[in-house]
Amino acid sequence: MDAKLVNPFIKATLTVLETMAFIKANPKKPFIKKNTIATGDISSIIGLSGETKGTISVSFESKCILSIVSNMFGEEIKELNEEVMDAAGEIANMISGQARQELEAAGKVLYAAIPTVISGKSHTISHMTSAPIMAVPFNTEFGEFTIEVCFED
Amino acid sequence: MDAKLVNPFIKATLTVLETMAFIKANPKKPFIKKNTIATGDISSIIGLSGETKGTISVSFESKCILSIVSNMFGEEIKELNEEVMDAAGEIANMISGQARQELEAAGKVLYAAIPTVISGKSHTISHMTSAPIMAVPFNTEFGEFTIEVCFED
Repeated sequence: MDAKLVNPFIKATLTVLETMAFIKANPKKPFIKKNTIATGDISSIIGLSGETKGTISVSFESKCILSIVSNMFGEEIKELNEEVMDAAGEIANMISGQARQELEAAGKVLYAAIPTVISGKSHTISHMTSAPIMAVPFNTEFGEFTIEVCFED
Repeated sequence: MDAKLVNPFIKATLTVLETMAFIKANPKKPFIKKNTIATGDISSIIGLSGETKGTISVSFESKCILSIVSNMFGEEIKELNEEVMDAAGEIANMISGQARQELEAAGKVLYAAIPTVISGKSHTISHMTSAPIMAVPFNTEFGEFTIEVCFED
């Protein structure tokens, strides 16, 4: 996987959180994961296909997604309900949409599947690929989240 | 969503389990879900795009996937480890591959993303779509599993 492919996703993540939830996220150094396991309380996953196939996932600690969604809605949301899952799916959708637009402008056309949102205390996510997985942890004042991007080539 | 689109997935599920794990699964009546929530202990998700976009997921009770994988490997597997996650991803991959082949022969071309496998006690899965979601529960002698298929049109 070309490491440059991950940059549009980082940029899109920052823009989406800033625009939708007025939250400034700080990306930490991206790294290539050797194991395939990510953990979170709420994750959104979007399958990508086209010139290559891949997946993007965004995994949030519950404290972090609750703060983001509270900011988005302008009211305090305290539990991981269906509204929160919808919002987590929409955030991943927007990140994927913006990043794909930028990739397309650079000549890389990818199509997105329907987002799937997983809820469950400390679930793990494993991308079934032999390709490297780029992980980017983000800090916010409300806790951490991680995006993972992988492409088969 | 055209309900006929689900039939190739049912057929592929039966073939894959029979061929890989010597397990006869009995499909119960497919139904259209109004809510978007499925639950399981291990789920595999594959995003689909092409003429339409969609998702297929397969959610297993842990007892059921452990029995399937034990049969596949010819030895008793007792815990939900990485091998079990790999096998769950491979099962979904094969179901999606066979079903897409049949859909392609009928003129419907779909591309699959990389499978993602989720592990976590009683996690929930929500497909972010306004389109109907077709769910098909299956019985086996080792417990239940459910496939869900949704397409935007």
